Amino acid sequence: MNRTPVAILGATGYTGAELIRLLDQHPHFEIAYLGAHSQQGKRAGEVITSIGNPAIANMILQASDTPIPDSIPLIFTALPHGASANIIASLINNGKRVIDLSADFRHQSSQTYLEAYQAEHPCPELFPLAIYGLSELQRDRIKNCQLLANPGCYPTSLLLPLIPLLQKRLIDPNYIIVDSKSGTSGAGRSAKTNLLYCEINEGMSAYGLPRHRHNWEMEEWAQCLGGLTANIHFVPHIIPMTRGMMSTIHLQGGHAQAWHETLCATYQNEPFIQILPYGELPSTHHVRGSNRCSIGMIATGENCGVIVSCIDNLLKGASGQAIQNANIMFGFEETTGLSSYATWP
Amino acid sequence: MNRTPVAILGATGYTGAELIRLLDQHPHFEIAYLGAHSQQGKRAGEVITSIGNPAIANMILQASDTPIPDSIPLIFTALPHGASANIIASLINNGKRVIDLSADFRHQSSQTYLEAYQAEHPCPELFPLAIYGLSELQRDRIKNCQLLANPGCYPTSLLLPLIPLLQKRLIDPNYIIVDSKSGTSGAGRSAKTNLLYCEINEGMSAYGLPRHRHNWEMEEWAQCLGGLTANIHFVPHIIPMTRGMMSTIHLQGGHAQAWHETLCATYQNEPFIQILPYGELPSTHHVRGSNRCSIGMIATGENCGVIVSCIDNLLKGASGQAIQNANIMFGFEETTGLSSYATWP
Amino acid sequence: MNRTPVAILGATGYTGAELIRLLDQHPHFEIAYLGAHSQQGKRAGEVITSIGNPAIANMILQASDTPIPDSIPLIFTALPHGASANIIASLINNGKRVIDLSADFRHQSSQTYLEAYQAEHPCPELFPLAIYGLSELQRDRIKNCQLLANPGCYPTSLLLPLIPLLQKRLIDPNYIIVDSKSGTSGAGRSAKTNLLYCEINEGMSAYGLPRHRHNWEMEEWAQCLGGLTANIHFVPHIIPMTRGMMSTIHLQGGHAQAWHETLCATYQNEPFIQILPYGELPSTHHVRGSNRCSIGMIATGENCGVIVSCIDNLLKGASGQAIQNANIMFGFEETTGLSSYATWP
Amino acid sequence: MNRTPVAILGATGYTGAELIRLLDQHPHFEIAYLGAHSQQGKRAGEVITSIGNPAIANMILQASDTPIPDSIPLIFTALPHGASANIIASLINNGKRVIDLSADFRHQSSQTYLEAYQAEHPCPELFPLAIYGLSELQRDRIKNCQLLANPGCYPTSLLLPLIPLLQKRLIDPNYIIVDSKSGTSGAGRSAKTNLLYCEINEGMSAYGLPRHRHNWEMEEWAQCLGGLTANIHFVPHIIPMTRGMMSTIHLQGGHAQAWHETLCATYQNEPFIQILPYGELPSTHHVRGSNRCSIGMIATGENCGVIVSCIDNLLKGASGQAIQNANIMFGFEETTGLSSYATWP
Repeated sequence: MNRTPVAILGATGYTGAELIRLLDQHPHFEIAYLGAHSQQGKRAGEVITSIGNPAIANMILQASDTPIPDSIPLIFTALPHGASANIIASLINNGKRVIDLSADFRHQSSQTYLEAYQAEHPCPELFPLAIYGLSELQRDRIKNCQLLANPGCYPTSLLLPLIPLLQKRLIDPNYIIVDSKSGTSGAGRSAKTNLLYCEINEGMSAYGLPRHRHNWEMEEWAQCLGGLTANIHFVPHIIPMTRGMMSTIHLQGGHAQAWHETLCATYQNEPFIQILPYGELPSTHHVRGSNRCSIGMIATGENCGVIVSCIDNLLKGASGQAIQNANIMFGFEETTGLSSYATWP
Repeated sequence: MNRTPVAILGATGYTGAELIRLLDQHPHFEIAYLGAHSQQGKRAGEVITSIGNPAIANMILQASDTPIPDSIPLIFTALPHGASANIIASLINNGKRVIDLSADFRHQSSQTYLEAYQAEHPCPELFPLAIYGLSELQRDRIKNCQLLANPGCYPTSLLLPLIPLLQKRLIDPNYIIVDSKSGTSGAGRSAKTNLLYCEINEGMSAYGLPRHRHNWEMEEWAQCLGGLTANIHFVPHIIPMTRGMMSTIHLQGGHAQAWHETLCATYQNEPFIQILPYGELPSTHHVRGSNRCSIGMIATGENCGVIVSCIDNLLKGASGQAIQNANIMFGFEETTGLSSYATWP
Repeated sequence: MNRTPVAILGATGYTGAELIRLLDQHPHFEIAYLGAHSQQGKRAGEVITSIGNPAIANMILQASDTPIPDSIPLIFTALPHGASANIIASLINNGKRVIDLSADFRHQSSQTYLEAYQAEHPCPELFPLAIYGLSELQRDRIKNCQLLANPGCYPTSLLLPLIPLLQKRLIDPNYIIVDSKSGTSGAGRSAKTNLLYCEINEGMSAYGLPRHRHNWEMEEWAQCLGGLTANIHFVPHIIPMTRGMMSTIHLQGGHAQAWHETLCATYQNEPFIQILPYGELPSTHHVRGSNRCSIGMIATGENCGVIVSCIDNLLKGASGQAIQNANIMFGFEETTGLSSYATWP
Repeated sequence: MNRTPVAILGATGYTGAELIRLLDQHPHFEIAYLGAHSQQGKRAGEVITSIGNPAIANMILQASDTPIPDSIPLIFTALPHGASANIIASLINNGKRVIDLSADFRHQSSQTYLEAYQAEHPCPELFPLAIYGLSELQRDRIKNCQLLANPGCYPTSLLLPLIPLLQKRLIDPNYIIVDSKSGTSGAGRSAKTNLLYCEINEGMSAYGLPRHRHNWEMEEWAQCLGGLTANIHFVPHIIPMTRGMMSTIHLQGGHAQAWHETLCATYQNEPFIQILPYGELPSTHHVRGSNRCSIGMIATGENCGVIVSCIDNLLKGASGQAIQNANIMFGFEETTGLSSYATWP
């Protein structure tokens, strides 16, 4: 079978590099175009030294105005928020299918986007086309979509355990505390003083308060897919590790054993969702380097408890879920090219 | 002025090593005895290579049955929980003053100890003597005490911001969420597989659930010093850094600006408590290597908000507060030998 | 095609865990037996939480006296040095093929083993059977071997660049300085105080002097494969990272551009050997998570220069090369189941 | 005694922050002026959150054209290389004493500076004034100097052990290999992609070849103070830790026990130089957070051996040695305000 050619725009950031690693080893996709406007003209291997295939390492990074060949039906856009929308509009007009790893089409309306990102959305007319790509819960909508909005990392780690509990009314939706911790790769590859090694190493901090922009995404999809208005208090932290994300979810209004039964039932056949035995909690070591979401829970009182949900922010939280969605969109086995094994130690 | 001779029992753990570093550079205390039963007969400098004073490095580590000279009035016990009590009983009988860094006398009764540590307390008769050494809030009781119970690291990080708010009834005590993150030195220096570098590095995990033993300490002193029964939901995490502790405290029932005013007023003259401007949150980099507790807060809704409290678990969370208490007990300036500067980067 | 069943003995150490990850995703091998004497009776997934396949996670770890089924033709032994030899003797007698990741059969004689490991070799009669598995330079001997001695990590990183230069007489063999740095996973998974997170993090140290046991392996195979008696001064260091190994090789007696030409020619068709453009030096980020050895060099004077050679100690330095060798032994494409992409960031 | 007021220019880099920490706690110096051109107008505490003294945290950072008060006799310049020289010329003209932490006056001539830094020196006329501040070996020259050139971190770690051996002709000066490893804070606080957390963490690299600019400084002072032309092959590496520097020095032409005797004799009364017992090698944990240089050595052959020298790059390698020199210049006890204790763990 011929491999389907794909393009990656924004190829030299961390999610772009992860897309290259995964797609070049994918049996059914083939990297045919790499865009990286700020690095245009360089060889990909100069900027991403981890590339193991000399043919890919020697590909020249393209400027944003270089046309993408007609033969390429699928484009991954891993551009900064705000930079994606206009480019995507043009791609959509040309009949491409697009998997967008930015936040530009994750919301249900341009109004929410405005609140969360403090900017007018440049292409509100595309919202009706966009499908929110939380793979396990949106498969049917994903299959035929032209524009897939790949979920944010924090929302993915939260929504996978939360939505089935909302659907079954097993928790109180009025006060959901989500205390999340992210590895530093989630902050991207821009040269900023606060992301220097010595500023991150041996320290940790909360950020994004009073309301992180992912909070809108969380509440919107909790309601849409869970069927209840949820009041989510979300505090993200950055911690001194490269990859990995943990959301510690403090819940009331039910017993953790009931939550456990529901999540086991919901996800029993899902290759990338691991529900641990009741009372066990995952480490991010369970998932680092894999596309797996590992979830554990325990009651801390009669009517309250804790769920811990771990993902690799660059895989299930970004590039891995993007490829899972690409598999769905192109009719391939959903696990193709993705590992459920963590790279450990 | 002659320096007061002191002994350290359990000198070769992480808190013991930190006591050595601080006490040897303290102008009014002098290290006169180092006990470390499992390392007896070795030179201190063999086991703790960071010691900078050859005279201290050459001291021989003593077995637990080596008598402590009469000339030493103050003993720091940095022994594992459960191993302290009997030794302390004997020291107290001999008229020594004791600062105990273990949990053995942090509780108000042997009943709470039994619940939290799942063991009968060996010396319940000493409870009436013990003073809980949360320095800023217990100064008057500390001055003349013979047996000081140095607070746990997690409780210190929580109680300093919480108690004034409870006292003033500015929060709802019925559902207090404390999501804490600790550097790995808090887990001690025992050779355990789960504390190996490769098991901690690039990963994080929650532990101690459904109810960590510090949870009893937190609730007991919240009630005793804050005057309200508090329902504290506490989830600790271990993260890949050596030192540093952050408690992210999710609160309801009031506005964070009112909390800020109260904490500013309470701690305005405290050299080791830093209340950040409203809306700013501390990093553990603010306090690493210092005896400071740095506290920030922000509202996340009309009636709810987040307080972030950072300490160095080995300083304000253990050995630093122990020396602060020793200063109070011996009438020295409270900041003597302690820095409020973080070692950064 | 049916997958060939294999067994792993010593499955719960770091190299064992890496073998599981790689073999379970290998199209032609199938894990059929997991031995881990000290953890016998547990499920594999309890001890190695990174396992992504529930079927493998549920396998029960076997004691060392559990017979290995006749249907399994290939055994990977990832046991401590000294513990392998007798077990291997029995396996060989039963007609199994063995890939041994310990040092027990890496030497050309029991005399060298005695010098390096300070112990009599228990099965010297097997030495004639053993093939040293430096894949790229020993392929023809590996194909039909019954007992493969997988090379040490430090020797692999050194010998790949060194041997071609010795063969061509392009360097002075009398004073070769190898200053190596290893991630901590190379020290294994035993619970030792000096390997605790807080003892490794934010520090580094040299070890193994005056003569590390890998020094014998290096000199023996430099002579055997390079044809010259080499005087190798080897100083290994342990640094605060989990995976990755760099050997900085200080050489005299020739020009680095000549070395570069030779290494480019020797390895031009090798999928796992990357010779960087002259003057560029690799980071361990080039190889982390991959089976690649990345090599760069530069002259530092008329007649001297530096070669930097990087591998992932758990892949090309252990389990990855073991599988590369298994591919050769069973006639599979040599790269099957192995990636040349680094997992980055 | 009144404290001597001092100024720091370049106060917000890592060496500047370390100067603030040390000087504010120094009994005889007092911080009276903080310059940081790019951050002018901000409070110091905004940019350096580790400052523990509110009075210092509230000082306003000054632009480079703000006059320094006449009452300040001593200026620490922690500016980038090349930016110091002209400012220093002006300060010197105004009668100030200057301790320069840049490389601008570390060389014996503008010719060497040109070779090492590839730039014409802007103030060659000041070279005769400058004293190279390797404290232990230059005390007499330092006392009365007006312009002190604080040594580089790598040269400090090398020259302290090397010079006595050269002076006594105990090594072959023709081929000295210095393989050095530095924590990342040595690379400064500029926002550069290659210094981001994710680019440094879990990786390491060599850099600065074929000839790092500190190589000139090493050879020049080896000759000047050691009395022999030394041929030093220097390869620096950056490793994933914040602080700490190790130089592994591979030497020939003598026996390490003779080296040990000489270094013990040379440094026996030096509070900041630790010569370990023969055969023991230091970790950077011996010195992290202290002004100590810890040195160990072992023979690796009849006529060759290894010396390992460790410092904290921000203390003995920069700001600590600067204050040691300030103590000498102002007649204070040399250890004042400096610790020989490592902060560990």
